[in-house]
Amino acid sequence: MTPALPSVPAGHLVLGVGIDVVAVDRFAASLARTPTLANRLFAADELVSASGSPRRPVSLAGRFAVKEAVAKALGVPPGMQWHDCTVISLSSGQPELVTTGTVLAAARALGVTTWRLSLSHDAGIAAAVVLALGSSQGRTE
Amino acid sequence: MTPALPSVPAGHLVLGVGIDVVAVDRFAASLARTPTLANRLFAADELVSASGSPRRPVSLAGRFAVKEAVAKALGVPPGMQWHDCTVISLSSGQPELVTTGTVLAAARALGVTTWRLSLSHDAGIAAAVVLALGSSQGRTE
Amino acid sequence: MTPALPSVPAGHLVLGVGIDVVAVDRFAASLARTPTLANRLFAADELVSASGSPRRPVSLAGRFAVKEAVAKALGVPPGMQWHDCTVISLSSGQPELVTTGTVLAAARALGVTTWRLSLSHDAGIAAAVVLALGSSQGRTE
Repeated sequence: MTPALPSVPAGHLVLGVGIDVVAVDRFAASLARTPTLANRLFAADELVSASGSPRRPVSLAGRFAVKEAVAKALGVPPGMQWHDCTVISLSSGQPELVTTGTVLAAARALGVTTWRLSLSHDAGIAAAVVLALGSSQGRTE
Repeated sequence: MTPALPSVPAGHLVLGVGIDVVAVDRFAASLARTPTLANRLFAADELVSASGSPRRPVSLAGRFAVKEAVAKALGVPPGMQWHDCTVISLSSGQPELVTTGTVLAAARALGVTTWRLSLSHDAGIAAAVVLALGSSQGRTE
Repeated sequence: MTPALPSVPAGHLVLGVGIDVVAVDRFAASLARTPTLANRLFAADELVSASGSPRRPVSLAGRFAVKEAVAKALGVPPGMQWHDCTVISLSSGQPELVTTGTVLAAARALGVTTWRLSLSHDAGIAAAVVLALGSSQGRTE
């Protein structure tokens, strides 16, 4: 008898990793130069902070680094929409990823059920690392 | 019959990730400007290298990046003491994390049993990535 | 009866992590100053891009960051040859690690069967993160 997976916690095996580094001033200059860029990259509620004020360039750069790291962790799926992957901040300050549409579909296709991510910025750089986790991959069972 | 977890290696499932980037010169300036800061951030044996000489700012910046990455990997637990999380260097040069007190308690509360970490510095930047690993989370079984 | 590991996907538990940051201009200057360095660090097919033109310094810096991150993820194994660990780019643009010789032997000794990696560069910095994955470690069973 081959037992099913009774006790292995779902969603904590590593299926993909992504890292991204963004030069904050260069990113801010791109946003200033191309007025449509912010709306192409960010959903409306990402452009304002919890207090309702416009999110600062350094914070937007960090969130863009997350989006790029998510794309890398998923193997750069074609047709990915930037709005389909957003970061929310828990009350602790810890970031959490919310995926919808194209990103959710790409994640499901790979068996990704859980995300872990972290962000940092200093020295004019925003950096993000993202882990795509799942309980298994179709091709491994 | 539901078997217990007989063969799943303990402590290698991902529960959290943290990344941190520190500008070395800015960190060194903070240490110089606030004489009490070094002792607030570092235990006495972290302030000297294996040979007994004072640890260089770039090395302290890397160790501080680890502490911040650990905090992020644990979800920024309130009341965390910087001294409760230190890095030791194995003879190979590989870093290992030692947790005590507040950090050990926060790790246990999340089911974290094992840490993996890595450090790098170049271009005036110290960067650390930390993985908090465990065999399971209470809430997933 | 203790069942064997029937359903745990092989190669997705974390055994090691490595991060590396490389200042691109400093790395390019080292390559220019020491003509033998490029051949010591890179295999012949790493020095040219898919189109056959010489790979740019920023791209070589990223690949060197991967090699250093792999070494760290394996615990800095003595005798590791840089040529035994190369990056290939899948058609999606996603990087994949190919290990041979000394690196493959060090990986096998630790139970590492799978690699996940990601690369980024901006602001004059190339950064890589590498995860060494396996189904178990000898010492944990």
